Amino acid sequence: MIFIHASTNRGLEQFALDQIGEIPKDTIIWLDVEKPSEEEINWLKSAVSFEMPPREVFGDIEISSKYKEEGDFIYMNLSFVIQQKEDILVEPVVFFIKGRYLVSLRYRDIPTLLIFQKRAIAQNMHFQFPEAIFAEIVKIEIDRIGDRLEILGRRIRNLRKEVFSEQSEEIIKDLSYYDELNITLRESINEKLRILSHFIKSPRVNAQTKRDMKVALDDLHTLLDYTTLYMDRIDSIQSSLLGLISIRQNEAVKVFTVLATIFLPATLIASIFGMNFKYMPELHWKYGYPYSLFLMVSTTLVLIYWVRKKGWL
Amino acid sequence: MIFIHASTNRGLEQFALDQIGEIPKDTIIWLDVEKPSEEEINWLKSAVSFEMPPREVFGDIEISSKYKEEGDFIYMNLSFVIQQKEDILVEPVVFFIKGRYLVSLRYRDIPTLLIFQKRAIAQNMHFQFPEAIFAEIVKIEIDRIGDRLEILGRRIRNLRKEVFSEQSEEIIKDLSYYDELNITLRESINEKLRILSHFIKSPRVNAQTKRDMKVALDDLHTLLDYTTLYMDRIDSIQSSLLGLISIRQNEAVKVFTVLATIFLPATLIASIFGMNFKYMPELHWKYGYPYSLFLMVSTTLVLIYWVRKKGWL
Amino acid sequence: MIFIHASTNRGLEQFALDQIGEIPKDTIIWLDVEKPSEEEINWLKSAVSFEMPPREVFGDIEISSKYKEEGDFIYMNLSFVIQQKEDILVEPVVFFIKGRYLVSLRYRDIPTLLIFQKRAIAQNMHFQFPEAIFAEIVKIEIDRIGDRLEILGRRIRNLRKEVFSEQSEEIIKDLSYYDELNITLRESINEKLRILSHFIKSPRVNAQTKRDMKVALDDLHTLLDYTTLYMDRIDSIQSSLLGLISIRQNEAVKVFTVLATIFLPATLIASIFGMNFKYMPELHWKYGYPYSLFLMVSTTLVLIYWVRKKGWL
Amino acid sequence: MIFIHASTNRGLEQFALDQIGEIPKDTIIWLDVEKPSEEEINWLKSAVSFEMPPREVFGDIEISSKYKEEGDFIYMNLSFVIQQKEDILVEPVVFFIKGRYLVSLRYRDIPTLLIFQKRAIAQNMHFQFPEAIFAEIVKIEIDRIGDRLEILGRRIRNLRKEVFSEQSEEIIKDLSYYDELNITLRESINEKLRILSHFIKSPRVNAQTKRDMKVALDDLHTLLDYTTLYMDRIDSIQSSLLGLISIRQNEAVKVFTVLATIFLPATLIASIFGMNFKYMPELHWKYGYPYSLFLMVSTTLVLIYWVRKKGWL
Amino acid sequence: MIFIHASTNRGLEQFALDQIGEIPKDTIIWLDVEKPSEEEINWLKSAVSFEMPPREVFGDIEISSKYKEEGDFIYMNLSFVIQQKEDILVEPVVFFIKGRYLVSLRYRDIPTLLIFQKRAIAQNMHFQFPEAIFAEIVKIEIDRIGDRLEILGRRIRNLRKEVFSEQSEEIIKDLSYYDELNITLRESINEKLRILSHFIKSPRVNAQTKRDMKVALDDLHTLLDYTTLYMDRIDSIQSSLLGLISIRQNEAVKVFTVLATIFLPATLIASIFGMNFKYMPELHWKYGYPYSLFLMVSTTLVLIYWVRKKGWL
Ligand SMILES: [Mg+2]
Ligand SMILES: [Mg+2]
Ligand SMILES: [Mg+2]
Ligand SMILES: [Mg+2]
Ligand SMILES: [Mg+2]
Ligand SMILES: [Mg+2]
Ligand SMILES: [Mg+2]
Ligand SMILES: [Mg+2]
Ligand SMILES: [Mg+2]
Ligand SMILES: [Mg+2]
Ligand SMILES: [Mg+2]
Ligand SMILES: [Mg+2]
Ligand SMILES: [Mg+2]
Ligand SMILES: [Mg+2]
Ligand SMILES: [Mg+2]
Ligand SMILES: [Mg+2]
Ligand SMILES: [Mg+2]
Ligand SMILES: [Mg+2]
Ligand SMILES: [Mg+2]
Ligand SMILES: [Mg+2]
Ligand SMILES: [Mg+2]
Ligand SMILES: [Mg+2]
Ligand SMILES: [Mg+2]
Ligand SMILES: [Mg+2]
Ligand SMILES: [Mg+2]
Ligand SMILES: [Mg+2]
Ligand SMILES: [Mg+2]
Ligand SMILES: [Mg+2]
Ligand SMILES: [Mg+2]
Ligand SMILES: [Mg+2]
Ligand SMILES: [Mg+2]
Repeated sequence: MIFIHASTNRGLEQFALDQIGEIPKDTIIWLDVEKPSEEEINWLKSAVSFEMPPREVFGDIEISSKYKEEGDFIYMNLSFVIQQKEDILVEPVVFFIKGRYLVSLRYRDIPTLLIFQKRAIAQNMHFQFPEAIFAEIVKIEIDRIGDRLEILGRRIRNLRKEVFSEQSEEIIKDLSYYDELNITLRESINEKLRILSHFIKSPRVNAQTKRDMKVALDDLHTLLDYTTLYMDRIDSIQSSLLGLISIRQNEAVKVFTVLATIFLPATLIASIFGMNFKYMPELHWKYGYPYSLFLMVSTTLVLIYWVRKKGWL
Repeated sequence: MIFIHASTNRGLEQFALDQIGEIPKDTIIWLDVEKPSEEEINWLKSAVSFEMPPREVFGDIEISSKYKEEGDFIYMNLSFVIQQKEDILVEPVVFFIKGRYLVSLRYRDIPTLLIFQKRAIAQNMHFQFPEAIFAEIVKIEIDRIGDRLEILGRRIRNLRKEVFSEQSEEIIKDLSYYDELNITLRESINEKLRILSHFIKSPRVNAQTKRDMKVALDDLHTLLDYTTLYMDRIDSIQSSLLGLISIRQNEAVKVFTVLATIFLPATLIASIFGMNFKYMPELHWKYGYPYSLFLMVSTTLVLIYWVRKKGWL
Repeated sequence: MIFIHASTNRGLEQFALDQIGEIPKDTIIWLDVEKPSEEEINWLKSAVSFEMPPREVFGDIEISSKYKEEGDFIYMNLSFVIQQKEDILVEPVVFFIKGRYLVSLRYRDIPTLLIFQKRAIAQNMHFQFPEAIFAEIVKIEIDRIGDRLEILGRRIRNLRKEVFSEQSEEIIKDLSYYDELNITLRESINEKLRILSHFIKSPRVNAQTKRDMKVALDDLHTLLDYTTLYMDRIDSIQSSLLGLISIRQNEAVKVFTVLATIFLPATLIASIFGMNFKYMPELHWKYGYPYSLFLMVSTTLVLIYWVRKKGWL
Repeated sequence: MIFIHASTNRGLEQFALDQIGEIPKDTIIWLDVEKPSEEEINWLKSAVSFEMPPREVFGDIEISSKYKEEGDFIYMNLSFVIQQKEDILVEPVVFFIKGRYLVSLRYRDIPTLLIFQKRAIAQNMHFQFPEAIFAEIVKIEIDRIGDRLEILGRRIRNLRKEVFSEQSEEIIKDLSYYDELNITLRESINEKLRILSHFIKSPRVNAQTKRDMKVALDDLHTLLDYTTLYMDRIDSIQSSLLGLISIRQNEAVKVFTVLATIFLPATLIASIFGMNFKYMPELHWKYGYPYSLFLMVSTTLVLIYWVRKKGWL
Repeated sequence: MIFIHASTNRGLEQFALDQIGEIPKDTIIWLDVEKPSEEEINWLKSAVSFEMPPREVFGDIEISSKYKEEGDFIYMNLSFVIQQKEDILVEPVVFFIKGRYLVSLRYRDIPTLLIFQKRAIAQNMHFQFPEAIFAEIVKIEIDRIGDRLEILGRRIRNLRKEVFSEQSEEIIKDLSYYDELNITLRESINEKLRILSHFIKSPRVNAQTKRDMKVALDDLHTLLDYTTLYMDRIDSIQSSLLGLISIRQNEAVKVFTVLATIFLPATLIASIFGMNFKYMPELHWKYGYPYSLFLMVSTTLVLIYWVRKKGWL
């Protein structure tokens, strides 16, 4: 599917593929391409001379696969963080800027692009350069990452309290989920920092968009700081958790050792007097039984005293 | 509520909303706004052309939501650390500087603003620029963060000793609280470092206030260093705590294993001779009983010797 | 073996050693040397005045053994990461650039060189400088490291989920393998960063190749960032693993302590009434037996209540 | 108490308060003030126009409370590390440089000042500037921190060996003490780095003293590196300690589990044949007893074999 | 002992103390002094005006005690890493460069100096400046540190595999030894980085030696990177070790808990029927015995089922 948006004086207007002729000459056009067919890729090549990169390069992490500038076009591969229930996706989108065209090419719907479209129409935005649309989309994604980090910050702070009421597998799952979300956001921020630092040095980008993207870079640096703070917080909670688990185990082992100290010696003594030897004087002794009880109590007390003195319990 | 303070030659004087007309033309006015009503927001818009930012932007962490400079005004969103019993709050306050006005807008009372007011009156401070009032407030907040860090430093040092007398959940709670307080102060310091580094480069700020804020930035860097030192100290105490807990558990497990080595074999032997077989020669043997005791003692000694030699205990 | 490749106008053509004379004067020649014999080393010395470095310097890690520039030649020692089943090899290859020659000397086959050869022929590449061949080989190795890191990234992310279903030695082996692969890639990236930063400052390298290698350096920095992110992820998974193991052990110890609390006291009571004393009133008491059962149940309940109240279980 | 030292041509000479008039006009005077009375503070104000800072500012950690330069004076607040048996004190001393005066104000005796005094007399030092005396004191304190770090380095290296002979609470106490000492020295080094970096940029300080303090800054950076190395060493020892404790516990638990595997089943079998059922065929069987022993041995062997095969022990 | 080496046109020639007169005027002389007597120190003072530093300064770590430049001499204190069986020594050597003399003063034999001497003779080296000899010695020491790091790297990689076959005290000892060796090499590298960064800025050092030492500095930075990588590797192995130890303990505790769940209830039941109460109906019941066995088996199964369902085992 190819969605065509033109920045006319009435704001961002949508056109069908066959109406493309009706768009005035110098109007900025945004071609938003989702899961392009062979035919659509060829059309793009002829209409905007956009070369479709091979699919396996899509996931590339080297900056040379993320930012290319040649002749009269800028090629960028920027990833968007998409939250799906428990999981966090990193979805790459290819951006291509040439002449009056901005091409965005993707293999699934990206919430940020939708938000941009609605906001551009609502606020009747007018764009004089294709890279200005790209900049607006980047600003919205950075805002969303900022909001996600604020929510993550509050969740991590709550987790710090929960750890003291419950040291369960649930807590470790939450910690692990927040750690992964935090590092994935960090990765996504790093990627944008690299791409935008090339973008603002490009001769092909207008001055106003460069100023906007400098502010965006400043925002990204602030957000990067927050991910570092959150890693410190998560480390701190993990060490509290480990501490609490160890203390709980100590208590259980102590209870168990005290029980053993009390009951093992006494059970031995009882078993001894349970033996069926014919010649066991104590068995026939009048005070044999109380003597055995006395033996049990005294050995237990001696043992407890000895263990306590040694500071082992 | 809108509190109006004017920096007259008699120092910082408070005026009622309707007396605002009586304040001489060029006097610097500080409008301190708490939980503004619709009506008060409109008044601010008309009187000082102050645009109220949407509430959800208040908690934003990106610097673009924290510092904006346009036309003839500076908009800043600075957070204040407020200690409430066990918890540490981070409360954002919006500052707006335009012409001879400083507007501060907040949704709860901020101790630092109160302290500033008292000190300005006590020391008969006179302000030639609205940003000078803002700078004075920032200096007081940095001082308070400094004092909090000094107290935190002493508390952490005491905790290091307490760990050796008691390895309890209490200790882990304290460690966790200090870690959170330290990281929150660190976050607040980072935020001010970013905002002030923009502020001192602004063409709208007078030279003297810029010099003051350079000193403030230097202070913030020192305080940031201290938070790093405190993180090292807390890590160190946590690893002492874990070490002590593990050693305590080792001792308990050793006691338990020694008991088992002594009593389990003896109890088995006693149980064997407690069996009711008709044909058990030892039972009828004259020295059966002492023989059984001898058996118990010898197996125990052999086992203890074997375990010790192997270095397992 | 010495493989001779010449960059003729028909692309990268292979020649036998004795045909070397037929290669036109100014054609760029790549001499790919594998496990050279004494005789071949002498031929290289006379033909290209290439001095074979002593074998033990091959594994040297100091940059002075990795990059040398003198007179009219550049000597480099660059390592290639080779994956062999479970293990990761770091194989050094010596590169020597002089006049129209590029010499590569190695003691085993290097996949990257093979890939370069195929791609140079397939894309009919033509080289005007020997260092341009070197640059192309480096670009392919960086690409392969990038791809390896992408795969590693996905594997690490899967491992984070596996940890919650299984805390086995297998998981620790995987973590250890990914950690080692990640650090080895990091080491290899560091090495290339150092060598290329010297290479792009060399007066002996043409401008276009210098521009290519600047892009390569940018890629290497991005990849280095990813290795740091992966170390954070691996640390995070390790701490989840430790947390889960401790929690599992806590549960086992609790079960055990509960069992001991229930059965040890009851077994003692049973053993006491199993003693063969002549004078044991309870034994002859009509309700002796139920009394003993009552005793067992009550002691157990008292103990469980006491342990629960103390919060030890 | 106010100790007056004048740098006459006979070296550093001490004068009584009332002899101050006899000191030649341009001689450099060092006023060393300990626990000043109200009266002495007033004298200082009139004689040297030294403003006594409020006591609570003494412990301030922000650099603005540590270094102030105005008009014709430099005010500094520098802390000295003082070792008291087990504990490490950080004692702040205020320094005030104006005209030909150096004032040092403190609330306890500082060993470094004493050492300086002795060395100045012994080496017949002559000072042309008050800040030169301050610089000499700082150099001695840096030397003492250097010596402390050398001793600490040796102690940490010995501890690394001790850990393998004994994993006791003592070891953890030593580790904790060295960690605290190391971080406190680090804090003190950081403080001096900040103060001296302002000091060497002051127009009020002579060129020779600036050169000396540049060397001092270089020393401080070296010492800071050593504190980082020591933190790595202490971390490494802590992880060895944790490893050893865990291994010791594993061994104890294994011994215990082996005992349980041998004796629990056998004791059950013995108890079964100790039951007083009228109809128990085995009891009347001629080979009942050896049969029971055979049963015990065989169940134990089967269990041990099964546990070993499963790799649990 | 004072060993005199002169750089004559026949290479590095050794002279006896009394032959010193025969060395031509402008020949560069290296005075290698081992454990100097009082008399030898005085000779040095008069012959080369070399001031012997006090012994306790030898171990100083501040850079001001490691590098001094005054008048026409350079004084340096450089440490050499010497491996003695299990231990790693850091041995300081004083170097003094003045006129045509290089003095090296030490209190034990230093392998690197020996290697230099042999290589200088073997390669018939000729030195025009005393600092060139110093530079050659430094290059050899850096090479040796590089080789040590390569060996250490291989050893650490092997240890990573050993950890999975054996989690013994031996492994922790090796880890601790490699950690200490790595950090000591790191310390020694740091020291040389500081000294050489002063050395290459000295007006008293010739241009060629400065260029050599720039290469040496580059080598030192590479080696420093490797020590960081090795610290990451050692941390990673330590966490694998801890993980494996915990998993082993979990298994032992599980085996033990299963045994307890099976045998404790059965033993109680057996002991109950071993009681000698006159009125115990079951004892006289025809199927008492099989009933007791049934009771034992059923309680055990119920318990195992309950524990499994709760996921505790
Ligand atoms: Mg999105
Ligand atoms: Mg925003
Ligand atoms: Mg937001
Ligand atoms: Mg936050
Ligand atoms: Mg986790
Ligand atoms: Mg972490
Ligand atoms: Mg406040
Ligand atoms: Mg202050
Ligand atoms: Mg304060
Ligand atoms: Mg402190
Ligand atoms: Mg904590
Ligand atoms: Mg921490
Ligand atoms: Mg345990
Ligand atoms: Mg390869
Ligand atoms: Mg690529
Ligand atoms: Mg790729
Ligand atoms: Mg990834
Ligand atoms: Mg691992
Ligand atoms: Mg790691
Ligand atoms: Mg002192
Ligand atoms: Mg010194
Ligand atoms: Mg010293
Ligand atoms: Mg040392
Ligand atoms: Mg410690
Ligand atoms: Mg530490
Ligand atoms: Mg050596
Ligand atoms: Mg070398
Ligand atoms: Mg080498
Ligand atoms: Mg290596
Ligand atoms: Mg270790
Ligand atoms: Mg380490």
